Amino acid sequence: MIRKICVVITARASYCRIKTVLTEIRKHPGLELQLVVAASALLEKYGCILDSIEKDGFCITAKVSNVLDVASYTAAAKTTGLGIIELASLFENIRPDVVVTIGDRFETMSAAIAASYMNITLAHIQGGEVTGNIDEKVRHAVTKLADIHFVAAEKAKMRVIQLGEVPECVFNTGFPSIDLALSVMNTSNNCDSDICKNTNPNPTTKYLVVMQHSVTTELQCAAKQIQETLNAIKTLNLPTYWFYPNADPGSSEITNEIRKFEEKDHNHLIRFVRNFEPHYFLKLIKSSSCLIGNSSTGIREASFLGVPVVNIGSRQAGREKGSNVMNTDFDCIEIVKAVNNQLLHGPYPSETIYGNGDAGRKIAELLAIMPFSTDKKIAY
Amino acid sequence: MIRKICVVITARASYCRIKTVLTEIRKHPGLELQLVVAASALLEKYGCILDSIEKDGFCITAKVSNVLDVASYTAAAKTTGLGIIELASLFENIRPDVVVTIGDRFETMSAAIAASYMNITLAHIQGGEVTGNIDEKVRHAVTKLADIHFVAAEKAKMRVIQLGEVPECVFNTGFPSIDLALSVMNTSNNCDSDICKNTNPNPTTKYLVVMQHSVTTELQCAAKQIQETLNAIKTLNLPTYWFYPNADPGSSEITNEIRKFEEKDHNHLIRFVRNFEPHYFLKLIKSSSCLIGNSSTGIREASFLGVPVVNIGSRQAGREKGSNVMNTDFDCIEIVKAVNNQLLHGPYPSETIYGNGDAGRKIAELLAIMPFSTDKKIAY
Amino acid sequence: MIRKICVVITARASYCRIKTVLTEIRKHPGLELQLVVAASALLEKYGCILDSIEKDGFCITAKVSNVLDVASYTAAAKTTGLGIIELASLFENIRPDVVVTIGDRFETMSAAIAASYMNITLAHIQGGEVTGNIDEKVRHAVTKLADIHFVAAEKAKMRVIQLGEVPECVFNTGFPSIDLALSVMNTSNNCDSDICKNTNPNPTTKYLVVMQHSVTTELQCAAKQIQETLNAIKTLNLPTYWFYPNADPGSSEITNEIRKFEEKDHNHLIRFVRNFEPHYFLKLIKSSSCLIGNSSTGIREASFLGVPVVNIGSRQAGREKGSNVMNTDFDCIEIVKAVNNQLLHGPYPSETIYGNGDAGRKIAELLAIMPFSTDKKIAY
Amino acid sequence: MIRKICVVITARASYCRIKTVLTEIRKHPGLELQLVVAASALLEKYGCILDSIEKDGFCITAKVSNVLDVASYTAAAKTTGLGIIELASLFENIRPDVVVTIGDRFETMSAAIAASYMNITLAHIQGGEVTGNIDEKVRHAVTKLADIHFVAAEKAKMRVIQLGEVPECVFNTGFPSIDLALSVMNTSNNCDSDICKNTNPNPTTKYLVVMQHSVTTELQCAAKQIQETLNAIKTLNLPTYWFYPNADPGSSEITNEIRKFEEKDHNHLIRFVRNFEPHYFLKLIKSSSCLIGNSSTGIREASFLGVPVVNIGSRQAGREKGSNVMNTDFDCIEIVKAVNNQLLHGPYPSETIYGNGDAGRKIAELLAIMPFSTDKKIAY
Repeated sequence: MIRKICVVITARASYCRIKTVLTEIRKHPGLELQLVVAASALLEKYGCILDSIEKDGFCITAKVSNVLDVASYTAAAKTTGLGIIELASLFENIRPDVVVTIGDRFETMSAAIAASYMNITLAHIQGGEVTGNIDEKVRHAVTKLADIHFVAAEKAKMRVIQLGEVPECVFNTGFPSIDLALSVMNTSNNCDSDICKNTNPNPTTKYLVVMQHSVTTELQCAAKQIQETLNAIKTLNLPTYWFYPNADPGSSEITNEIRKFEEKDHNHLIRFVRNFEPHYFLKLIKSSSCLIGNSSTGIREASFLGVPVVNIGSRQAGREKGSNVMNTDFDCIEIVKAVNNQLLHGPYPSETIYGNGDAGRKIAELLAIMPFSTDKKIAY
Repeated sequence: MIRKICVVITARASYCRIKTVLTEIRKHPGLELQLVVAASALLEKYGCILDSIEKDGFCITAKVSNVLDVASYTAAAKTTGLGIIELASLFENIRPDVVVTIGDRFETMSAAIAASYMNITLAHIQGGEVTGNIDEKVRHAVTKLADIHFVAAEKAKMRVIQLGEVPECVFNTGFPSIDLALSVMNTSNNCDSDICKNTNPNPTTKYLVVMQHSVTTELQCAAKQIQETLNAIKTLNLPTYWFYPNADPGSSEITNEIRKFEEKDHNHLIRFVRNFEPHYFLKLIKSSSCLIGNSSTGIREASFLGVPVVNIGSRQAGREKGSNVMNTDFDCIEIVKAVNNQLLHGPYPSETIYGNGDAGRKIAELLAIMPFSTDKKIAY
Repeated sequence: MIRKICVVITARASYCRIKTVLTEIRKHPGLELQLVVAASALLEKYGCILDSIEKDGFCITAKVSNVLDVASYTAAAKTTGLGIIELASLFENIRPDVVVTIGDRFETMSAAIAASYMNITLAHIQGGEVTGNIDEKVRHAVTKLADIHFVAAEKAKMRVIQLGEVPECVFNTGFPSIDLALSVMNTSNNCDSDICKNTNPNPTTKYLVVMQHSVTTELQCAAKQIQETLNAIKTLNLPTYWFYPNADPGSSEITNEIRKFEEKDHNHLIRFVRNFEPHYFLKLIKSSSCLIGNSSTGIREASFLGVPVVNIGSRQAGREKGSNVMNTDFDCIEIVKAVNNQLLHGPYPSETIYGNGDAGRKIAELLAIMPFSTDKKIAY
Repeated sequence: MIRKICVVITARASYCRIKTVLTEIRKHPGLELQLVVAASALLEKYGCILDSIEKDGFCITAKVSNVLDVASYTAAAKTTGLGIIELASLFENIRPDVVVTIGDRFETMSAAIAASYMNITLAHIQGGEVTGNIDEKVRHAVTKLADIHFVAAEKAKMRVIQLGEVPECVFNTGFPSIDLALSVMNTSNNCDSDICKNTNPNPTTKYLVVMQHSVTTELQCAAKQIQETLNAIKTLNLPTYWFYPNADPGSSEITNEIRKFEEKDHNHLIRFVRNFEPHYFLKLIKSSSCLIGNSSTGIREASFLGVPVVNIGSRQAGREKGSNVMNTDFDCIEIVKAVNNQLLHGPYPSETIYGNGDAGRKIAELLAIMPFSTDKKIAY
């Protein structure tokens, strides 16, 4: 019997992190893909991914719009509550055999609760990592609701098992985004013209990439934190691609500071961008001289791609990091110093902490053959 | 500064399990009680507790009605989603310093998500235990969202720590319901006339109590399971107080079987009841000859009260049990045999696995003096 | 191009009132039926109609469970709000060309708002009538949201036009339930054995039918009102089919009184029932000696079937009534007197105030050929 | 007994339209004000009014955030559904004697349904007018749910009565925003320095004001429509205050075009603004040489203030207009021509179609003395 695999994408970044899994599910004769796009993944201002999905030829089973306006704490809770209601109705209708939820953003909880409460087997991708932020709570709570765990690193596997999950249900498949990174590694080193068509700075020269999100447990400092980075980038005076932040509480504070900055510094080399297709996104990262901010991309994809990273603040504290990462505080001078050091150093050797490029295939195969169950007990 | 402690009661049984904590919070000069009654705790058919609360003199800060009709899987998910939305609005309004959520029923997740997503310190009572059912997932997921843990047994404390919580935030205070049980222990051994006023069987004679809930991971067997117990009780032919089930998926299947049974066996000794005030409830348990079913009351309060228990099926599998508990399958003959053995044995000595009667005071004091934080990382 | 007609059924009684329309839409080559079953139509305790629908061979496009437990005012509002959310997602998915909503119960507003706010043409069945109750507000508000009106009587048509609707969009098609009544008229006069199989009283003898719902603007009297009717029926001492009330605020008060009555008067001739298939329901009405209560069935179907009716209280005040209807207050003695008069009188001649039996066909044809628009202005 | 009057403000513009009513309720010894701010009234991007409210010294009883991100049709429906749920809980808690809802934007329906379904007397301000758009449906549907009507013009009163409302419950009090306009009329003719502090163009010179919202029934033309106006304003080459659009479906299309325009035409005389305090807003309108767009401000306040208006497209079709209004299509050349004509003409005499400045006092007095009822029938 063909198994119905329902993958719920709730954020821009998740598409990149699941794309090779979707491809492998689609190819597998024993699996049927049910693709649900929900929450901030549908919002243009956070980088709508519908075009990329369509271009890649995936059929969307349903769209679920559930994001409340204003990226506040209260809105995050309400968005999640509304997501549970909508996904419950949807799951009742399309009756998946397993629901796959990705990562640790607050919206992933909607899929996790709807599926587990409805006695549907829940698979979680990217459990067992350690960070700061509400993400840390969400990630481990989802692990405790999930029946199957596809983790991306050995330490992550150990932690999921420590959390009382039976080892037979925990698989270190690597991180699916590394699959894409591998294919990017195998193309020419120069950033090709595809990117250039859509962007400003000349990509044959050095350029920086900034990805800085809010830290939900430090919201009162959001404006100050982004100012430090903005000033650092201004000081560095290099062509820069700057990604708008995720739909977290605090994102509007960040966006406001960016706007103010833009109004004052109109002719700067900074290009503010929202979203790239997964492939071009990774090419952009690969060819950059330094990735700056607090995105997990700097920790995971960048370590595989050997891109120098300046990781700022507490958001990624606890995650395993490669030798390509330098940590700093939210301090303009420190950031400038660290970036200059990374520019001097140049590219790092590729590391496989987060996988070696076949996560998608492994996950699809496990979904096809694993026994499914919703009954589990804490193991110890 | 006075700390605002918001206690969210979402189910009938939770009032019993938190009452002494409420009393101690109310008495404490450094604490202000915000009492929220929500979900099935408001529904008459599951035993509305508003009268008891009023009689005990507590002010209700807000009522939140969020239960969907039909006790199905989908309804459980939607009820939880709606609860998050409503509690988020409420918390924004009343701005508690800490939210206290109790136990492991699916509705507790509403308070846990609303509070943690809104960066409010979350305290959880009764984490770390092991059972079957969706409760097992809910309980540990709430632990991972919570910042402070008031557990009821040493093994529970060990498990919460195993789950990566820092030991400084995990307190074995005992189970607050044991506080009430202690006061019941100190009254006369005979069931007094207060109960008799409201009930049928003559309480000076032997009687049984049945509390059987659905097992959400075994819904397809719900009707069959309750039939076995109904037949066993019919065979035993003793006066019996039978509590209607909780608002879980599967409860309507149970209620339907009870109705059918009532229509056929009209003059039987069984008295179907919904709710008792905490004090009378425990007196009723204390004076019963045997408690039958799969309620955690049989595991916790009954072990302290020394009441013989026949625990049926998988729902309480994994919970520490006292010597008063005999386990059986859902099988009429087995159940009858086990009850008869317990009737022969009579009362057991009191055990303090789940506390010695001062949980309420301990919890209130810790809430008054503990440093509050919402920032945590998995410890290992 | 085939038009997609989405019919939303939100209550038990609505299936009866739309069945011939569904049949005609299904038969029409230019129409595709999208059948949505929602709200109390899904709840067993209010008479779940899923079995009837399945037996009649209709495919259900989606089920939407959105009823909050406890039939209170607040629950009515929340149920409607939740219904809007769920139907909006559904409509976005199935993209109907027109949404059909039926009648004047509060849940119909969910479909009306979701459709009109989403710029989908809205057709309303049964506008323009006059009653008491919240129904009166709901009915006319839905008229103002709707683009097409299929009314059931000439006066209703006049009233919809008075409300500012352009006459070209208002059609007196008659009431679809009369189509079913016509087919029942054409069968033998005796209630056939199909009903007997499922029911208690001997249907060859005289029997009464009672259908009494709560009056939402008079909730404080709900218990008293039902007691009067219960006492009247007890006094009349005839076999009686008594239908449980609709899912309105106040229904639980009625149900409680019925339960108390049942406990006291166990061996009475009253048979409390929940739901009948449309055909058997109309046969039951047709063969009854008198229909008692405040249901619109007494006003509409019964006038066509010539069944004597005793209409109690204000709920149907304002609706056009045939000569078969006697009005009384909620007063036991008055009710008994009126029923005895009706028993003496016996059947009335059939009247066609609410149609002559081809409403389904007319409505389907109009849905196939009418120009659809969502842009209207009040006409005067 | 003091009557609790709950006023629900759901949009930026509504504060201006209710402010003098709030002032009069607060002053009235027989009334207690419960002020609820909800929906887009809370969103900064649509002009958050919290600061104005605070500055005017009103206490906010509760804030209800219920707006879904993305201003789409589906989001409008879901926002309304969520609003009903939240307001139902709130009304249950604060138990108002009457709920006041304002105008005809889609969010007003939330308050109307929650109140009417909960059997709370509903008063509606601004019924009986005629426009295009979904507003037209919403306005009249709210009238049919409301018990008391405070309209702003004689023709509006006639229309509400035509809709079947009893004349005793329909009051032409005038439009409360005219009360503010009157006080602005009585101040000096020149735009004073308060405005200048916050804005760019020199207010002593001629300037234009643009307020253009989307037409929800013509969404496919939204981008084209705003482009015509943008080009017209560019051609006119005068200092211009341009207000961002309301939170309607289609507002993001408008905002996008504005952004594109800003990127291309950076040094233009146009100043894009979000919100002004009611007093300064009216001063700005009063001193402007011409008000351009499709806002009802051009029809109502501007006719009292004698400000020349160019009203574009169908949105205000049907509303009574003063001699100050010239209508055009969405056509750059036509708009330019009409504005130039208005500039030549200069100010118009004040007209009192929408009231003479004492609406707030009249409404508060009626709320204090009117008999309240929720039971009504269509009158004809």
